[in-house]
Amino acid sequence: MALGNEVLIGKKPVMDYVTAVIFQFNTGSDEVILKAKGNMISRAVDVAEIVKKRYMGQVKLDGFAVNSEVVRNREGQTRISTMELTLKK
Amino acid sequence: MALGNEVLIGKKPVMDYVTAVIFQFNTGSDEVILKAKGNMISRAVDVAEIVKKRYMGQVKLDGFAVNSEVVRNREGQTRISTMELTLKK
Repeated sequence: MALGNEVLIGKKPVMDYVTAVIFQFNTGSDEVILKAKGNMISRAVDVAEIVKKRYMGQVKLDGFAVNSEVVRNREGQTRISTMELTLKK
Repeated sequence: MALGNEVLIGKKPVMDYVTAVIFQFNTGSDEVILKAKGNMISRAVDVAEIVKKRYMGQVKLDGFAVNSEVVRNREGQTRISTMELTLKK
Protein backbone atom coordinates (compact mmCIF):
# COMPACT_ATOMS: atom_id res chain seq x y z
CA MET A 1 0.00 0.00 0.00
CA ALA A 2 2.89 2.38 0.79
CA LEU A 3 6.24 2.42 -1.07
CA GLY A 4 8.66 5.11 0.10
CA ASN A 5 6.47 8.20 0.24
CA GLU A 6 3.91 6.84 -2.21
CA VAL A 7 0.52 5.48 -1.22
CA LEU A 8 -1.20 3.29 -3.81
CA ILE A 9 -4.98 3.65 -3.58
CA GLY A 10 -6.90 0.39 -3.97
CA LYS A 11 -10.12 -1.19 -2.74
CA LYS A 12 -9.52 -0.99 1.02
CA PRO A 13 -11.61 1.38 3.14
CA VAL A 14 -10.71 5.07 2.64
CA MET A 15 -9.59 5.44 6.26
CA ASP A 16 -6.86 2.81 5.76
CA TYR A 17 -5.24 5.08 3.18
CA VAL A 18 -5.77 8.19 5.32
CA THR A 19 -3.92 6.38 8.13
CA ALA A 20 -1.10 5.41 5.74
CA VAL A 21 -0.68 9.04 4.62
CA ILE A 22 -0.73 10.39 8.19
CA PHE A 23 1.83 7.74 9.16
CA GLN A 24 4.12 8.96 6.35
CA PHE A 25 3.83 12.58 7.51
CA ASN A 26 4.37 11.60 11.15
CA THR A 27 7.52 9.63 10.34
CA GLY A 28 9.33 12.46 8.62
CA SER A 29 7.96 12.76 5.07
CA ASP A 30 7.23 16.30 3.88
CA GLU A 31 5.52 15.01 0.79
CA VAL A 32 3.23 12.06 0.10
CA ILE A 33 2.16 10.99 -3.40
CA LEU A 34 -1.22 9.30 -3.82
CA LYS A 35 -1.39 7.07 -6.89
CA ALA A 36 -4.64 5.69 -8.29
CA LYS A 37 -6.07 4.12 -11.43
CA GLY A 38 -9.56 3.97 -12.91
CA ASN A 39 -12.38 4.03 -10.38
CA MET A 40 -9.91 4.36 -7.52
CA ILE A 41 -9.20 7.96 -8.63
CA SER A 42 -12.32 9.22 -6.81
CA ARG A 43 -11.13 7.45 -3.66
CA ALA A 44 -7.70 9.10 -3.90
CA VAL A 45 -9.42 12.51 -3.99
CA ASP A 46 -11.45 11.51 -0.91
CA VAL A 47 -8.22 10.52 0.90
CA ALA A 48 -6.59 13.85 -0.04
CA GLU A 49 -9.62 15.81 1.20
CA ILE A 50 -9.79 13.97 4.53
CA VAL A 51 -6.05 14.44 5.15
CA LYS A 52 -6.33 18.16 4.29
CA LYS A 53 -9.22 18.54 6.77
CA ARG A 54 -7.39 16.59 9.51
CA TYR A 55 -4.27 18.71 9.22
CA MET A 56 -6.30 21.94 9.07
CA GLY A 57 -4.27 23.99 6.65
CA GLN A 58 -0.89 22.36 7.35
CA VAL A 59 -1.16 19.97 4.39
CA LYS A 60 -1.94 21.21 0.92
CA LEU A 61 -2.35 19.74 -2.51
CA ASP A 62 0.91 20.58 -4.23
CA GLY A 63 0.78 18.73 -7.52
CA PHE A 64 -1.43 16.79 -9.79
CA ALA A 65 -0.86 14.66 -12.87
CA VAL A 66 -3.21 12.60 -14.99
CA ASN A 67 -2.22 10.05 -17.55
CA SER A 68 -3.48 6.79 -18.98
CA GLU A 69 -2.10 3.36 -19.64
CA VAL A 70 -3.12 0.40 -21.76
CA VAL A 71 -4.31 -2.64 -19.83
CA ARG A 72 -4.78 -6.10 -21.36
CA ASN A 73 -7.74 -8.18 -20.23
CA ARG A 74 -9.81 -11.08 -21.56
CA GLU A 75 -11.70 -8.86 -24.03
CA GLY A 76 -8.50 -7.47 -25.52
CA GLN A 77 -7.01 -4.19 -24.42
CA THR A 78 -8.44 -1.08 -22.88
CA ARG A 79 -7.13 2.29 -21.77
CA ILE A 80 -7.34 3.22 -18.10
CA SER A 81 -6.77 6.67 -16.56
CA THR A 82 -4.17 7.11 -13.86
CA MET A 83 -3.69 9.95 -11.40
CA GLU A 84 -1.02 11.17 -9.02
CA LEU A 85 -1.81 13.67 -6.29
CA THR A 86 1.03 15.20 -4.29
CA LEU A 87 0.29 16.29 -0.73
CA LYS A 88 2.82 18.57 0.95
CA LYS A 89 3.18 19.47 4.62
CA MET B 1 -24.54 19.21 -18.96
CA ALA B 2 -22.72 22.32 -20.24
CA LEU B 3 -23.05 25.80 -18.72
CA GLY B 4 -20.90 28.49 -20.35
CA ASN B 5 -17.53 26.79 -20.61
CA GLU B 6 -18.24 24.32 -17.82
CA VAL B 7 -19.12 20.67 -18.35
CA LEU B 8 -20.75 18.92 -15.41
CA ILE B 9 -19.82 15.24 -15.35
CA GLY B 10 -22.66 12.88 -14.44
CA LYS B 11 -23.82 9.36 -15.21
CA LYS B 12 -24.06 9.59 -19.01
CA PRO B 13 -21.56 7.69 -21.18
CA VAL B 14 -18.05 9.18 -21.14
CA MET B 15 -18.18 9.96 -24.86
CA ASP B 16 -21.17 12.30 -24.33
CA TYR B 17 -18.96 14.50 -22.16
CA VAL B 18 -16.03 14.23 -24.56
CA THR B 19 -18.36 15.48 -27.32
CA ALA B 20 -19.54 18.35 -25.09
CA VAL B 21 -15.94 19.44 -24.40
CA ILE B 22 -14.93 19.22 -28.06
CA PHE B 23 -18.03 21.23 -28.99
CA GLN B 24 -16.95 23.97 -26.53
CA PHE B 25 -13.45 24.10 -28.04
CA ASN B 26 -14.83 24.11 -31.59
CA THR B 27 -17.19 27.00 -30.84
CA GLY B 28 -14.56 29.38 -29.60
CA SER B 29 -13.72 28.44 -26.00
CA ASP B 30 -10.02 28.39 -25.13
CA GLU B 31 -10.74 26.83 -21.79
CA VAL B 32 -13.21 24.21 -20.59
CA ILE B 33 -13.78 23.36 -16.93
CA LEU B 34 -14.86 19.82 -16.03
CA LYS B 35 -16.74 19.63 -12.74
CA ALA B 36 -17.44 16.37 -10.92
CA LYS B 37 -18.47 15.06 -7.51
CA GLY B 38 -17.91 11.74 -5.71
CA ASN B 39 -17.63 8.71 -7.99
CA MET B 40 -17.95 10.90 -11.08
CA ILE B 41 -14.43 12.27 -10.42
CA SER B 42 -12.86 9.20 -12.08
CA ARG B 43 -15.05 9.77 -15.11
CA ALA B 44 -13.97 13.42 -15.35
CA VAL B 45 -10.34 12.26 -15.48
CA ASP B 46 -11.27 9.79 -18.25
CA VAL B 47 -12.92 12.63 -20.22
CA ALA B 48 -9.83 14.83 -19.78
CA GLU B 49 -7.52 12.02 -20.93
CA ILE B 50 -9.60 11.23 -24.02
CA VAL B 51 -9.81 14.92 -25.02
CA LYS B 52 -6.03 15.31 -24.55
CA LYS B 53 -5.41 12.26 -26.79
CA ARG B 54 -7.88 13.48 -29.46
CA TYR B 55 -6.26 16.90 -29.66
CA MET B 56 -2.74 15.39 -29.68
CA GLY B 57 -0.86 17.99 -27.67
CA GLN B 58 -3.06 20.96 -28.49
CA VAL B 59 -5.10 20.64 -25.30
CA LYS B 60 -3.45 20.42 -21.90
CA LEU B 61 -4.53 20.16 -18.31
CA ASP B 62 -4.06 23.66 -16.97
CA GLY B 63 -5.56 23.59 -13.52
CA PHE B 64 -6.92 21.35 -10.89
CA ALA B 65 -8.82 21.91 -7.66
CA VAL B 66 -10.30 19.51 -5.14
CA ASN B 67 -12.72 20.36 -2.42
CA SER B 68 -15.60 18.79 -0.56
CA GLU B 69 -19.14 19.68 0.32
CA VAL B 70 -21.71 18.47 2.82
CA VAL B 71 -24.66 16.62 1.29
CA ARG B 72 -27.84 15.80 3.20
CA ASN B 73 -29.51 12.47 2.57
CA ARG B 74 -31.93 10.14 4.36
CA GLU B 75 -29.26 8.87 6.75
CA GLY B 76 -28.23 12.37 7.82
CA GLN B 77 -25.35 14.23 6.26
CA THR B 78 -22.19 13.12 4.56
CA ARG B 79 -19.19 14.82 3.00
CA ILE B 80 -18.56 14.37 -0.72
CA SER B 81 -15.40 15.28 -2.64
CA THR B 82 -15.62 17.63 -5.60
CA MET B 83 -13.12 18.27 -8.36
CA GLU B 84 -12.56 20.85 -11.09
CA LEU B 85 -10.23 20.16 -13.99
CA THR B 86 -9.37 22.98 -16.38
CA LEU B 87 -8.50 22.04 -19.95
CA LYS B 88 -6.82 24.70 -22.08
CA LYS B 89 -6.34 24.82 -25.84
